[in-house]
Amino acid sequence: MELRLDTAGLSGFLEREFGQVAQDFAVERVGPEGLLLRLKVAERHLRPGGTVSGPSIFALADVAMYLAILSRIGPVALAVTTNSSIDFMRKPVAGRDLLGEARLLKLGRSLAVGDVLVRSEGQAEPVARASLTYSIPPVR
Amino acid sequence: MELRLDTAGLSGFLEREFGQVAQDFAVERVGPEGLLLRLKVAERHLRPGGTVSGPSIFALADVAMYLAILSRIGPVALAVTTNSSIDFMRKPVAGRDLLGEARLLKLGRSLAVGDVLVRSEGQAEPVARASLTYSIPPVR
Amino acid sequence: MELRLDTAGLSGFLEREFGQVAQDFAVERVGPEGLLLRLKVAERHLRPGGTVSGPSIFALADVAMYLAILSRIGPVALAVTTNSSIDFMRKPVAGRDLLGEARLLKLGRSLAVGDVLVRSEGQAEPVARASLTYSIPPVR
Amino acid sequence: MELRLDTAGLSGFLEREFGQVAQDFAVERVGPEGLLLRLKVAERHLRPGGTVSGPSIFALADVAMYLAILSRIGPVALAVTTNSSIDFMRKPVAGRDLLGEARLLKLGRSLAVGDVLVRSEGQAEPVARASLTYSIPPVR
Repeated sequence: MELRLDTAGLSGFLEREFGQVAQDFAVERVGPEGLLLRLKVAERHLRPGGTVSGPSIFALADVAMYLAILSRIGPVALAVTTNSSIDFMRKPVAGRDLLGEARLLKLGRSLAVGDVLVRSEGQAEPVARASLTYSIPPVR
Repeated sequence: MELRLDTAGLSGFLEREFGQVAQDFAVERVGPEGLLLRLKVAERHLRPGGTVSGPSIFALADVAMYLAILSRIGPVALAVTTNSSIDFMRKPVAGRDLLGEARLLKLGRSLAVGDVLVRSEGQAEPVARASLTYSIPPVR
Repeated sequence: MELRLDTAGLSGFLEREFGQVAQDFAVERVGPEGLLLRLKVAERHLRPGGTVSGPSIFALADVAMYLAILSRIGPVALAVTTNSSIDFMRKPVAGRDLLGEARLLKLGRSLAVGDVLVRSEGQAEPVARASLTYSIPPVR
Repeated sequence: MELRLDTAGLSGFLEREFGQVAQDFAVERVGPEGLLLRLKVAERHLRPGGTVSGPSIFALADVAMYLAILSRIGPVALAVTTNSSIDFMRKPVAGRDLLGEARLLKLGRSLAVGDVLVRSEGQAEPVARASLTYSIPPVR
């Protein structure tokens, strides 16, 4: 249950390894109960009408779960998403960032499973809900 | 956010309308935050080795979400499951009942979405996680 | 791509290892392209109104994929379902068996992925669609 | 079963309504059996190591299903994704476009359901498999 990477460690990892997407996200909080990730909504994330696109919401959920896993196993392993199921429930509020709250439900030797609630900042009702499975390669 | 059916109302509904499966389940608790449903594990729910079968876990999640919806819209509507995604994470503990905790994330005019965490009684770590979408027929 | 278990081999395995459910199913066909499994619909699979219950449809999809995997890796390994996503699309036709057509999309060393189309016998339009992931334990 | 929009009609719609993403995609083929959509893989779709990112694969599946629906109902309705479940099965081949083959399994009055197989061009084995549900607003 010990954290191997804190907010600063995760942010540094993201910038080093995922330069293209690091600017889209900010790690707000990480702890034993999970991780909160911000999608800094910009023009490139929007669809006509001003809503955040589905793939951008998916990316927020995917990165949030990935970082939640790394906060526990450290930056060494190369985890890959094997499955994701996502429910889009409400339109995001225009002009607001999105916040993804990731919760790790299982961290096994080869599979990690968790879910993410996505909300527009300042709203209680969720925009989307995603569950994700990551495959964790065996330690060499 | 008002409840249209409480624990007794839901149990009565289950017995009246779903006689064959009503004996498998017990409504433990219902409130604005969700519903807790017990699967009274019996021989017929088990697979070789003594674990509860996947279809029985699925049934627990499905019925828990169904009753959580009915607690809010009343016993009138005929809601049907349109989608379910389920992650099986751990073996259930042998000889224990399963508890499904349903949380309603969206209750729209035509679709309801929620998720269910399934645990062996007395265990913190979840056995399974399911998300479900129900289609709610228009009021006549 | 070689088959390790044919129709008779799979039926025998089902009877030996899964006595309680074996009577519900019949392996109709197995080949390199997949497997066709029949759910012999009986009273115990029905919900009020005469439709086949969701858990019974889930069980058909789950067993079909399980047997499709075993047809390729043999009866030795103990594969377990880790994820399933299912869409319920149409009411099954009353009084008809259901047929599940499983297609194996990936058979890796530790994960197998596939999908299943479920139809009422004699109908072209599917009742349900499921995708399933199985975890395959390492060979000892 | 009649097509309301052919390849040219769908491409025009995409350019008019989804200017930002239209350049990423090309409609290769559309017919009663489904639709084939190309993701013209460019630098912006890649993750470190040169693989196409998960959100880009998700976008391909989402747009392919969206266009398959519009090919049947015409460009009038505003369909939105309500659920998607995706399995990532293999690494895309470096330097190749991705092709998404969408199949419409249900086109109801309020919900459409289908699935998409994603392959690297020239490869038989799929990179990913997605199922998607769209909500179709009532005709005014």
